[in-house]
Amino acid sequence: MNHLLTMDQLSNRMIYSLLENAGRMKRGEQKTWKGRFAANLFLEPSTRTRQSFHVAERRMQMEVLEMEAEQSSLLKGESLYDSVRTLEAIGTDILVIRQSERDSLQELSECKGISIINAGDGTGEHPTQSLLDLFTIYEEFGCFKGLTVTIAGDIKHSRVARSNAYALKQLGAEVQFSSPDEWKEPGKTYVTMDEAVASSDVLMLLRIQKERHDWEGDIPDYLTDYGLTKERERRMKSHSIILHPAPVNRGVEIDSALVECQKSRIFTQMNNGVYMRMAIIDELMGGKHNENNKCVPMERELFATM
Amino acid sequence: MNHLLTMDQLSNRMIYSLLENAGRMKRGEQKTWKGRFAANLFLEPSTRTRQSFHVAERRMQMEVLEMEAEQSSLLKGESLYDSVRTLEAIGTDILVIRQSERDSLQELSECKGISIINAGDGTGEHPTQSLLDLFTIYEEFGCFKGLTVTIAGDIKHSRVARSNAYALKQLGAEVQFSSPDEWKEPGKTYVTMDEAVASSDVLMLLRIQKERHDWEGDIPDYLTDYGLTKERERRMKSHSIILHPAPVNRGVEIDSALVECQKSRIFTQMNNGVYMRMAIIDELMGGKHNENNKCVPMERELFATM
Amino acid sequence: MNHLLTMDQLSNRMIYSLLENAGRMKRGEQKTWKGRFAANLFLEPSTRTRQSFHVAERRMQMEVLEMEAEQSSLLKGESLYDSVRTLEAIGTDILVIRQSERDSLQELSECKGISIINAGDGTGEHPTQSLLDLFTIYEEFGCFKGLTVTIAGDIKHSRVARSNAYALKQLGAEVQFSSPDEWKEPGKTYVTMDEAVASSDVLMLLRIQKERHDWEGDIPDYLTDYGLTKERERRMKSHSIILHPAPVNRGVEIDSALVECQKSRIFTQMNNGVYMRMAIIDELMGGKHNENNKCVPMERELFATM
Repeated sequence: MNHLLTMDQLSNRMIYSLLENAGRMKRGEQKTWKGRFAANLFLEPSTRTRQSFHVAERRMQMEVLEMEAEQSSLLKGESLYDSVRTLEAIGTDILVIRQSERDSLQELSECKGISIINAGDGTGEHPTQSLLDLFTIYEEFGCFKGLTVTIAGDIKHSRVARSNAYALKQLGAEVQFSSPDEWKEPGKTYVTMDEAVASSDVLMLLRIQKERHDWEGDIPDYLTDYGLTKERERRMKSHSIILHPAPVNRGVEIDSALVECQKSRIFTQMNNGVYMRMAIIDELMGGKHNENNKCVPMERELFATM
Repeated sequence: MNHLLTMDQLSNRMIYSLLENAGRMKRGEQKTWKGRFAANLFLEPSTRTRQSFHVAERRMQMEVLEMEAEQSSLLKGESLYDSVRTLEAIGTDILVIRQSERDSLQELSECKGISIINAGDGTGEHPTQSLLDLFTIYEEFGCFKGLTVTIAGDIKHSRVARSNAYALKQLGAEVQFSSPDEWKEPGKTYVTMDEAVASSDVLMLLRIQKERHDWEGDIPDYLTDYGLTKERERRMKSHSIILHPAPVNRGVEIDSALVECQKSRIFTQMNNGVYMRMAIIDELMGGKHNENNKCVPMERELFATM
Repeated sequence: MNHLLTMDQLSNRMIYSLLENAGRMKRGEQKTWKGRFAANLFLEPSTRTRQSFHVAERRMQMEVLEMEAEQSSLLKGESLYDSVRTLEAIGTDILVIRQSERDSLQELSECKGISIINAGDGTGEHPTQSLLDLFTIYEEFGCFKGLTVTIAGDIKHSRVARSNAYALKQLGAEVQFSSPDEWKEPGKTYVTMDEAVASSDVLMLLRIQKERHDWEGDIPDYLTDYGLTKERERRMKSHSIILHPAPVNRGVEIDSALVECQKSRIFTQMNNGVYMRMAIIDELMGGKHNENNKCVPMERELFATM
């Protein structure tokens, strides 16, 4: 694996390898990439993803370059490609990038000396989030086959929903959806939230992105009609779990009192995210053959055709 | 000690323990919390406090997450509580926080897995500043009993003044105040600046917060009427010292030429701040029993009642 | 060497020493200043310079304080001098500073406990850029004597051009210039770009700072009239090289297809920048006699006259 850009690039075998590796990381296995550099380039704001990567990188003793749009030469009109080539030239091995234009990542994947991790693009592909969700499910149940997973919320606009649905089906889970009519996508199996809580092993709530949306109802009604109320939570299966990518809109997707309830794995997901990101970085770094000193004169030939 | 939120939570015994520990740090004693994480969350701008904490954390080999409001999910409407729980979930042991609303710190202190250090709140509680002031006095005189300390400036609005006055009295010092009438608080002993320089062992100047205040006089007159002029400095006791929390308004609270005079301990205070913050962090980390790997599955039960 | 503020402070002997030291760093020689602190204070935006310094510092295991104007007490009206004294007080050995007012650096150089590196000032002095250019030339040719170097672009406003020209002449190279008439400075030898490509061993392109300039022609015409087109590149000497400080205006100073051509050393310059900065920091730190713990009580006497 040279880059991690989308979920559909991953075989089941690679996914299981990452899940097992993340599990080993969580049980305390030490992996070190001391002295190697990662750059975290966040062109859109983020707390948990940026900090989760930072913790993952430092736990493996990598050096971290933290970068934001305001600080960067992107202000001077430099292209993202040239910025990434610069990072490569100063010795960066891993680029974690959050930005809004999906196609530019494809262009960047031409860079051979640096491994790119998509940490969220504008339309919502966010493979490390999907993988930490899978890790949390796998850790709980030890398998995917036979599980019923309901993904609830804005199915239409959410690539996370699609990526997760795709991966979960490939791994053998039953996937169903729950959504207001406005956000339904044709060709999918839908259930009401009342049906969802009764049948699901995993209830995967999506975040309502209030700032982006067109839902016509009142947000207060969303909880009652489509969200996880305290009353619905009591009807969930005893072994079932609740996932949410966070940040949570308390009282919208989920009753505030449930955010830290027994079934909730919301903060466990964040905890697991560190280990999954360690596993991903380790996989990408492993593909680089553990050179002692990456910062060697570059092979200009590779780029001579541009 | 689980958190450091206010000065009045500290017993004399704890204060002396921190003073002694800071002294040992300054004499070069090595304490390491290698691989443990501190997060510095500054929702208001700061140079010296943030960097002082950063240096303290790194001298003990802690990992540091630097965070600002603009970068954070607080922008997406997440509560401070959820942000802190997130930091806890990704493995943060210490949260250094500067923010404007005092009550929110009380709420945060519910978090059991993370120790919170108040690095300044809106109304001016700033216990690590008070402790570094005490350290600088203790380092100079070896005691508090028998010392006369004058706190000069805006007594009315300054919690630092009140915190320091409280702690100094508990420790046995005589505390008096000097202030323009507008900023006097009833029930305190006031002296003029001319009296202050004659009688004080420690002259503790406060910063005039020009941006927040209502003082009716001209700022230029402040120095002459209430500040430390060169002429007044000459009348100070030979062994006395000058403190100021900085940044200094040169020519307002103090004549610019005195900022680095023989009696000034202003830059010594900054130097001492690193060692005091090391002592504070060490104390808080010690309360966590030096677990090898803090980032374990969390005890959800603790939060189930929310 | 106490500070690195300008190129003209450096003797040929010091330049060669830095070039040799940078070469050793690139060949993998380990130099460590573990536990010592550098502060990167960038009051103007930058990607490559800031990150290049960060990488250099961390490769030598220094601790790094990253600072920007918005975060700093400069907002509260503190002078740059007091900010730097603060950094010194908390234990900083090296200050890398980018800012717009040249004279303030002279004032800062009064600070004896901290070594200052000018990382670019408003009028364009940028000695670490000049030194990495020299390193790239020296690495290619092993000497300066007998080389013809053309500096092309806005000669009039560029201090980099003047600094580089000065240093290259001192080191024995022939220096000529190429520029539109508007940007010519009297008393220099000018050639057309067609003459430049035919005669140069090193073609040093300057960045057109579109935001600052007064050039009356169209930017599209600049490439054809004064820039490096594909056609001109074919007429360059076989062993000649192309330099550019970046970020590149693709299609203005240089045809986009040439940025990564065989003759281009543009990304090599960035790579070399890390090693040159390591050499510079090592030189400055060496002058401090490798004290084990720099953060000692300061000698107030030094500043008593201020």
